[in-house]
Amino acid sequence: MTVIRLSVLYPRTEGATFDHDYYRDKHIPMVAGQWGVSDVEIDRGLDGLYVAAAHFRFESIEAMKTAMSRGDGKAIGADVVNYTTIKPVMQTSEVSG
Amino acid sequence: MTVIRLSVLYPRTEGATFDHDYYRDKHIPMVAGQWGVSDVEIDRGLDGLYVAAAHFRFESIEAMKTAMSRGDGKAIGADVVNYTTIKPVMQTSEVSG
Repeated sequence: MTVIRLSVLYPRTEGATFDHDYYRDKHIPMVAGQWGVSDVEIDRGLDGLYVAAAHFRFESIEAMKTAMSRGDGKAIGADVVNYTTIKPVMQTSEVSG
Repeated sequence: MTVIRLSVLYPRTEGATFDHDYYRDKHIPMVAGQWGVSDVEIDRGLDGLYVAAAHFRFESIEAMKTAMSRGDGKAIGADVVNYTTIKPVMQTSEVSG
């Protein structure tokens, strides 16, 4: 079975801040609620390029697209300023193993 | 409980190749065997910066260090040419949610 991982990665950026508590307790629950997704993991970067990340799992690319289209993209985007100034990068992957 | 994710990320690189079958069937099983780790996921990048990735989970930073010290780093490194010319980047994170 194919599983799709959507990773949202926040590059460590000189001078930027990241409110991990807000991200974990407010932002991700809002996004997961809007998308109707329960399978999400949240990372606090300890070492490496990224200061934080979220990883959502979907049964397929179609399920991912459907979930994302369900969300209010404007509201999700507007909430980002509440926890960081970093612009995230997105990665979509097929998971095995 | 804290869970640690060690991600090994292979940046998509112009002209480089990546043998996903070898990585999944040979390289990662060798590394996981040497490290004594069973919790690993392998990604084939569909869209984004990375063409492939592996994510190992450990109970703690100490458990990660112990596992890695168990492995034959030279043999692991020498096997990389068998599947890619891409130099991976490492990310260590604390996982929640």
